[in-house]
Amino acid sequence: MLCINTNMSTSLRVRLPVFVLVMEIVMVTLFAFFVTYDENANAKFQNNETNPMENSMYRDYPYFADVQVMIFVGFGCLLAFFRFYGFSGMVFNFLTATFSIQWAILIQEFARAGVLISFGAVIGKTSPIQLLVMALLEIPIFSVTEWAVLKYLRINDAGGSILIHLFACYFGLGVTFVLYRPNLNSGHAKETTCYQSDILCVLGTLFLWVFWPSFNSALTLKGDDQHRAVLHTFIGLSSSTITAFALSAVFNKRGKLTMADIQNVTLAGGVTVGASVDMMISPAAAYGLGIMGCTACFFGYRYLTPFLAQRMRIQDQCGIHNLHGLTGLISSTAGICAILLATEETYGPSMYQIFSHRAPPEGHEKLLELQKLIPGLKPGLGRTAEEQALYQVAAIFATIGASAVGGLLTGLVLKLPFMASPSDDDCFDDELFFDTPSDFDSSVTLPIMCEDNRQKESIKNV
Amino acid sequence: MLCINTNMSTSLRVRLPVFVLVMEIVMVTLFAFFVTYDENANAKFQNNETNPMENSMYRDYPYFADVQVMIFVGFGCLLAFFRFYGFSGMVFNFLTATFSIQWAILIQEFARAGVLISFGAVIGKTSPIQLLVMALLEIPIFSVTEWAVLKYLRINDAGGSILIHLFACYFGLGVTFVLYRPNLNSGHAKETTCYQSDILCVLGTLFLWVFWPSFNSALTLKGDDQHRAVLHTFIGLSSSTITAFALSAVFNKRGKLTMADIQNVTLAGGVTVGASVDMMISPAAAYGLGIMGCTACFFGYRYLTPFLAQRMRIQDQCGIHNLHGLTGLISSTAGICAILLATEETYGPSMYQIFSHRAPPEGHEKLLELQKLIPGLKPGLGRTAEEQALYQVAAIFATIGASAVGGLLTGLVLKLPFMASPSDDDCFDDELFFDTPSDFDSSVTLPIMCEDNRQKESIKNV
Amino acid sequence: MLCINTNMSTSLRVRLPVFVLVMEIVMVTLFAFFVTYDENANAKFQNNETNPMENSMYRDYPYFADVQVMIFVGFGCLLAFFRFYGFSGMVFNFLTATFSIQWAILIQEFARAGVLISFGAVIGKTSPIQLLVMALLEIPIFSVTEWAVLKYLRINDAGGSILIHLFACYFGLGVTFVLYRPNLNSGHAKETTCYQSDILCVLGTLFLWVFWPSFNSALTLKGDDQHRAVLHTFIGLSSSTITAFALSAVFNKRGKLTMADIQNVTLAGGVTVGASVDMMISPAAAYGLGIMGCTACFFGYRYLTPFLAQRMRIQDQCGIHNLHGLTGLISSTAGICAILLATEETYGPSMYQIFSHRAPPEGHEKLLELQKLIPGLKPGLGRTAEEQALYQVAAIFATIGASAVGGLLTGLVLKLPFMASPSDDDCFDDELFFDTPSDFDSSVTLPIMCEDNRQKESIKNV
Repeated sequence: MLCINTNMSTSLRVRLPVFVLVMEIVMVTLFAFFVTYDENANAKFQNNETNPMENSMYRDYPYFADVQVMIFVGFGCLLAFFRFYGFSGMVFNFLTATFSIQWAILIQEFARAGVLISFGAVIGKTSPIQLLVMALLEIPIFSVTEWAVLKYLRINDAGGSILIHLFACYFGLGVTFVLYRPNLNSGHAKETTCYQSDILCVLGTLFLWVFWPSFNSALTLKGDDQHRAVLHTFIGLSSSTITAFALSAVFNKRGKLTMADIQNVTLAGGVTVGASVDMMISPAAAYGLGIMGCTACFFGYRYLTPFLAQRMRIQDQCGIHNLHGLTGLISSTAGICAILLATEETYGPSMYQIFSHRAPPEGHEKLLELQKLIPGLKPGLGRTAEEQALYQVAAIFATIGASAVGGLLTGLVLKLPFMASPSDDDCFDDELFFDTPSDFDSSVTLPIMCEDNRQKESIKNV
Repeated sequence: MLCINTNMSTSLRVRLPVFVLVMEIVMVTLFAFFVTYDENANAKFQNNETNPMENSMYRDYPYFADVQVMIFVGFGCLLAFFRFYGFSGMVFNFLTATFSIQWAILIQEFARAGVLISFGAVIGKTSPIQLLVMALLEIPIFSVTEWAVLKYLRINDAGGSILIHLFACYFGLGVTFVLYRPNLNSGHAKETTCYQSDILCVLGTLFLWVFWPSFNSALTLKGDDQHRAVLHTFIGLSSSTITAFALSAVFNKRGKLTMADIQNVTLAGGVTVGASVDMMISPAAAYGLGIMGCTACFFGYRYLTPFLAQRMRIQDQCGIHNLHGLTGLISSTAGICAILLATEETYGPSMYQIFSHRAPPEGHEKLLELQKLIPGLKPGLGRTAEEQALYQVAAIFATIGASAVGGLLTGLVLKLPFMASPSDDDCFDDELFFDTPSDFDSSVTLPIMCEDNRQKESIKNV
Repeated sequence: MLCINTNMSTSLRVRLPVFVLVMEIVMVTLFAFFVTYDENANAKFQNNETNPMENSMYRDYPYFADVQVMIFVGFGCLLAFFRFYGFSGMVFNFLTATFSIQWAILIQEFARAGVLISFGAVIGKTSPIQLLVMALLEIPIFSVTEWAVLKYLRINDAGGSILIHLFACYFGLGVTFVLYRPNLNSGHAKETTCYQSDILCVLGTLFLWVFWPSFNSALTLKGDDQHRAVLHTFIGLSSSTITAFALSAVFNKRGKLTMADIQNVTLAGGVTVGASVDMMISPAAAYGLGIMGCTACFFGYRYLTPFLAQRMRIQDQCGIHNLHGLTGLISSTAGICAILLATEETYGPSMYQIFSHRAPPEGHEKLLELQKLIPGLKPGLGRTAEEQALYQVAAIFATIGASAVGGLLTGLVLKLPFMASPSDDDCFDDELFFDTPSDFDSSVTLPIMCEDNRQKESIKNV
């Protein structure tokens, strides 16, 4: 019954089950040996701790559930924006997110969001096998990078601007650089949206928007810091959203709005406030960061993405370099400024909680003084603001370097045979990997210069 | 590159960016001067309070997040019900909600929902500029009204029936009265739904339904009162929903269901229980209120909305007068009854917590007695039930008066030139403000008497 | 104006309002006499308890809200998968869920999910009257069964595998057995999906996926047990999801993915971990349960569902026997194994909390010892593991028997006249019960062997 597929084929019939089977054996073995219940889940030490701050079930589950909505529903709808690629966008996101959960439970929980960001760079041009292999490699590379950065550089990055957004962006760009398809540089007839797919995509944007404050505040210190993280994220998102509308109208010849801007650029502010989201940056600064991030993101889509594609062989399909890369850089820079500007006057003794590496080291006299004010304050490294800033800079470069190299290597793996990579013609087409319903017809002759081709649209309107 | 638009044009190319730019400068200045961190967010007084009842982050954020889903996703889908106006419905809701957040952070948080309710009166016939200006004016007018009502009249209105629903409704009616378009009174060829837009709209209804209990209980006293608010809202919504199905079938000639009823009338119960939502009205009364609100709302759609349009120059596009006005009036009346019927027998000493203005004033002997039973009970005004009821009546009239006048004045502002107001022909058409994908074609000749024209359908079936 | 309908008619004009009116009178009477505020909602005993574990408002509302999203949005979208039956799928789910809430408030809250599962067996072939009557009968039959099982057999069933999934499944199969339509056994021209309806259905799957951990953990003991329930559900769902993708590809001739598998089979793991979800089964076992449930479910769709329809007169439209029956049986069996394997070594003294019927009875010496370790431990029945396992087996048979008989009787009631049952031709068609928009046309000649007919597709690909 089973037929042998040549490596030119894109049938999933052997490849996907074999991959899943192997992974399941590996996973279940690793689970059996390495995954145990922590003290708040182990019946042997059953304490039934229900104080929300003492049991991660009550402390973290609400934020985790919000992030799950972002990942499954938000990204799922957002990535369903192509007219003939809605099944793939939503379903491959589902598959990749689920596989990543398993892998991430073993390794590092927040790695998951990164995989789905990187997916944006190569959407439409990859098989589900390639996506699963990408997740398989990205999560450990991420975890090693994160471990090294947190252990040796010790940085502040509450919203994950450096470790999630910059990492995922440059990893994705590395992958797409290797997977370069010269024939697609002038566009693809199926690289279009339709009315319903655009609406679905906005729905994804809305879910991401609504729960972004939960994402940015999930890992902060509880209490005041988490409170500020929520406030700053709302403010940053809101200023970035209205700026996106303004820019979309002003750079459109006929003064109309472009859906791609509303679907993507509006969200830039959520990333841009990330690195300083729990600091005392002031609401006005969060507002300004939203505007800056949005502006960089918008011009990135118009000028940088086409440039990268045509001159640098980097085809960044969803423009993740704009939404996560440029904004991540601005965010990291803002974080450094916030670190340099932090004073005890503004923060009181809590400065040494938030910037924990600036706390005096073990045995230092000042530590004892501070511990009188903040019981339980942990000893730090006694860094000055300038020193901390330099470590942040180092972390930015280290993360970009590690992720780009990791992405390039991953890209090479994805080019191996048996990866079911679609031909250029079959890109952006659900027909390739799905049984489609009878009303689906991607073979209709499309106008060669499609009105809604995203990249060309941007260029046309300049 | 930029061309000067005449005031007849609807290009957003200059207007929208200029408006946004000005507002951003204003906002960031106001933020810089007037928005500060409260004690639970200010690092200087960092207490990292994590008791849910002591830090608004933990006390309010879950309800706030639910309300955000209602506003962005619920309203967003609900307002996407027109066949050729899905982009506008969902995206202008996004823009207006976001702009309102900023403005409301400065002024009054709950004002936001009001703006989106008022939007329902003028959807399809307004430009995004007009919507932003409407939000800009409605929020401060709302806040002054609320401040005056709460300071001078001191009322009970947990679910916002008076201050949110009645205010937003009559404000919206005031605006639409001024924007009257006589040519649209006999319907518009594009004023139709389609299969997918109807489904999307129901999805919005479902999100509103599910999170309405969070909305109605967000501002009550915590504990028992909030508990009752959730229960009453569920019961009211559920009785109103099944009543809506029954009425929809019985008043349809062929005994079929009408989607517009399911999308709107089902929700009436959520508003109707609002004013008494935290009181001891009994579950059966909540059930009855749901039926009454739904019935009023249903007949409002069939008879009052066409009457208002044809005789009173009030074109209420989504029928907000039915879903928020009539139900708000019933709700307010029910609240007054609940106030008149409240006795210490039913409520125990907590009566003076819920009806806080009935608590004895400072220094009164009974206050001391009560404070022994309820430590921390605040002194009130020593009002009788009848006095409180009269103040409620005064609040209803004051709110309606202030909102109607505010709406009329706002409508005049929206008629000024440079507001990019669409021509009658261009109403209900995404083409006007959006680059649309190639499958979008609103120019198809539609049957003049469209089957799904909402208002006419209602009349036809009588 | 009202015309008398013959019992052949499917007009809802008299039937639906009469049913609703009668039910509303009954409900409001029952509410008035039997529904009262509990001590955390009654103002008379107002304690404003805000400790999350002491007031069900704070303890349960977050999980309840998540389950509401599953029921209204998740099921709503999932059941909208037919091309010409999207209105009905989503709206009848809304109606039935709402009516069930009222009825369930009076009787038993978790009965609601069961009604919507049973709905899956008869979707497309029933009128809203029939669905309401089914809910009306299923909820009390469920409650009596649950009461008897919990009172006389006393079982462990945290995720509801026995009492929710098995009950709902066999109840639904009983109903559909009686409603057998021989002419539909070879398929129906309108029994198809379309591109948009498939996407909407996946959206429903995603909402169910994301909030399933809340569902499975809502009724466990708080603290460690709830924590484990969330972990196991995630793990089970994730292994079942990737297995579903693998099986879908391997059993498809062209190696493509089938949307029906992704929409349904992915979720099997959530049910399969249910009965042992709060026990110390180990993460690896949860992983394995996900794979087993998914595999059984997948082959059930391919072989068992067609067999049941053609040989047993059981037309299980959505294949609930695969997603809830087979998985429920596996889950129950796994629960029994977990009970047999439970030792004090693994669980510590908390074994007598989780398996509460194994705790020593009142007055027993060991009870006093245990109560020193776990203050407040309730006396149990002193059952051995083997005894408890036998009671679990008894509960499985009792539940299946009671639900099947209840379903058969309910089916007979649904065959009575005046139930507005659709003719064979009118099945799967929104036109029958809805005013549809002008773009809706279910009369198009469909290819007789429709490509996307679910059951036939399965068979074809073997």
